[in-house]
Amino acid sequence: MNYREESLKKHAEWQGKIEVVSRVEVDSREKLSLAYTPGVAEPCLAIEKDPEKSFTLTRRWNTVPVITDGTAVLGLGDIGPEAGMPVMEGKCALFKAFGGVDAVPLCIRSKDTEEIIRTIKLLEGSFGGINLEDISAPRCFEIERRLKEELDIPVFHDDQHGTAIVTAAALWNALELTGKKAEDLSVVINGAGAAGIAIARFLLNTGVKEIVLCDSKGIICEGDPRLNSEKQDLAKITNRRRITGGLADAMKGADVFIGVSVANCVTKEMVASMKKDPIVFTCANPTPEISREDALAAGAAIVGTGSSEKPNQINNVLVFPGLFRGALDVRASDINFEMMYAASRAIAACVGKKELNPDYILPYAYELRAHEAVAAAVAQAARETGVAKI
Amino acid sequence: MNYREESLKKHAEWQGKIEVVSRVEVDSREKLSLAYTPGVAEPCLAIEKDPEKSFTLTRRWNTVPVITDGTAVLGLGDIGPEAGMPVMEGKCALFKAFGGVDAVPLCIRSKDTEEIIRTIKLLEGSFGGINLEDISAPRCFEIERRLKEELDIPVFHDDQHGTAIVTAAALWNALELTGKKAEDLSVVINGAGAAGIAIARFLLNTGVKEIVLCDSKGIICEGDPRLNSEKQDLAKITNRRRITGGLADAMKGADVFIGVSVANCVTKEMVASMKKDPIVFTCANPTPEISREDALAAGAAIVGTGSSEKPNQINNVLVFPGLFRGALDVRASDINFEMMYAASRAIAACVGKKELNPDYILPYAYELRAHEAVAAAVAQAARETGVAKI
Repeated sequence: MNYREESLKKHAEWQGKIEVVSRVEVDSREKLSLAYTPGVAEPCLAIEKDPEKSFTLTRRWNTVPVITDGTAVLGLGDIGPEAGMPVMEGKCALFKAFGGVDAVPLCIRSKDTEEIIRTIKLLEGSFGGINLEDISAPRCFEIERRLKEELDIPVFHDDQHGTAIVTAAALWNALELTGKKAEDLSVVINGAGAAGIAIARFLLNTGVKEIVLCDSKGIICEGDPRLNSEKQDLAKITNRRRITGGLADAMKGADVFIGVSVANCVTKEMVASMKKDPIVFTCANPTPEISREDALAAGAAIVGTGSSEKPNQINNVLVFPGLFRGALDVRASDINFEMMYAASRAIAACVGKKELNPDYILPYAYELRAHEAVAAAVAQAARETGVAKI
Repeated sequence: MNYREESLKKHAEWQGKIEVVSRVEVDSREKLSLAYTPGVAEPCLAIEKDPEKSFTLTRRWNTVPVITDGTAVLGLGDIGPEAGMPVMEGKCALFKAFGGVDAVPLCIRSKDTEEIIRTIKLLEGSFGGINLEDISAPRCFEIERRLKEELDIPVFHDDQHGTAIVTAAALWNALELTGKKAEDLSVVINGAGAAGIAIARFLLNTGVKEIVLCDSKGIICEGDPRLNSEKQDLAKITNRRRITGGLADAMKGADVFIGVSVANCVTKEMVASMKKDPIVFTCANPTPEISREDALAAGAAIVGTGSSEKPNQINNVLVFPGLFRGALDVRASDINFEMMYAASRAIAACVGKKELNPDYILPYAYELRAHEAVAAAVAQAARETGVAKI
């Protein structure tokens, strides 16, 4: 099937992938008087006295906006706020289907970091958490950091952490299969945008010691004056051997390649130059860094991709519905590393030891048990780290 | 029933009066590929090329936020943004039940006019129209005026125009019953906030010639230096006899009293001082300006109230669902006077000549045919005035 052509047709038929429905009946004078005036004055006054009651007397406890400025939508780049909406709506549909979360798509017509932060802050009281989406680097880092500091509800930039969590989950199971150990790994990440940087930070936090990050100019190395501040920070904790050169240089002798970059930037020779039983995750979409077939032919032990058409799709849809479900269930004030780590371990554990094989290292996105496992693990980690309010 | 106490209990049970649901299935790889990646890239690109397509390829065409800053919620005043949410959610439930509109409650944590305008402008691309709610006067006038100028989608401040439209509808039918003529009327409006001012402007636009507006200090008269700019503007077109004094002075010899003010500010004597067969609308909530019983005992020919417990409830729920349904159906760029006038006439016409009597001058809020009639009339008026885009 030509998914893109068919999808356009379907979108024109659907006229929207989500809708808002009423949970109350209003078909009589009495029912109207309870759901609306005059009765509604009483919950209003109760919230005025104690604003925390907005989490029990309205839908706030379960409502999360999926917010974009349209600057980094899928692999399409800066296509504008309205053009990002089909993706935001899709996320909202997935939020409900897999996490029971009421998600609302919002696009903001501004690329100004402060203005985006301010807009979201002003809307905080409407929501139980904030999901940031498809905002380009490096603004996305500042926006998320500031909102995490300044809001009392959990904030999550899916492109960073959702991707990091699911990639890590795939990696744990790939290590299990290849017998490699996290602390001995040499990992190359190609792509130093939101996803690449978040994956690097996440893996460094989980015991991986050697990571080399590449961007379109080549290997990122401490001291390079062309790096933005986010990459400079990363350069201090990655590439400790201080190698320089291009992606091909980075990949020589590496155990793991993680591509969150562009189509066709990896050759068979580059895969062949890696250490024995290399793990190759090619997540560029729609065309990967190297085709699964070529990567396998060049010796890859395990290949993960961004495509739903191939085995081992590494997609953050495995993360965000369950992650927010768990965070909302305990009214977490933050989504911290421990909660994200718990999510990645829960996803990996969904593939039983007996089922685990090179073509099945992650559960499928539509497996409800995976999302339930993530929710439970995240809620538990929130409680253990003291960010759960209930 | 004690509606307020019961309503608080119900709100705690409901945990939200609306929710977001998915309109698409995502329970297989194929379905995910159409609703989400990779298929979704195609509608995104189509909207990038032509942003108008956001009205056909996403839910934008049917989605309206109900936006408040929490400064004038019901008759409760400035109770804060979160505390306004039960009302906003209630409106959203009514929007769907009576108009099929997908409405989203948003509260903005700011009282700054420019900041509220800016926030809403930045979100324009997410919505098909904007419903402003429970924002205090005089800021509400500026906010609505500016947004109407600066946005391409229809903007409607319900407390002003919803109230004006339904009050006018009640008045047309009351005139029918009493044999009074709009052009001969002497109308007193008590309350010069958003609702009172909008009712005055609306009635002046529909043939009523003599209106005296009162606020808490008494009759509003041209030249009074204490008036804010909105009231000064009104003073130039109302009270042309330039009478002064209090509400009792205004009501002497008047045909119509419209109260959008406070409890118990009207006495039986004041009603008795009005012209023969006076029409008395007492919309203060929950306690009216004068009880229906007292107003009737003092000679009122027709009494309308804000209460769902009494006959002739004058409530803007008869307006906003159908009004937006009609505006969205033709993708109106504005909600103009003609559309609002058509709505008021359509509501009045829902009560047939044979049914019309002093205790039944308006359809009930839960009569679907009323909302359908409003939608049809509004769409028609939009087409006739050239603001319909489809």
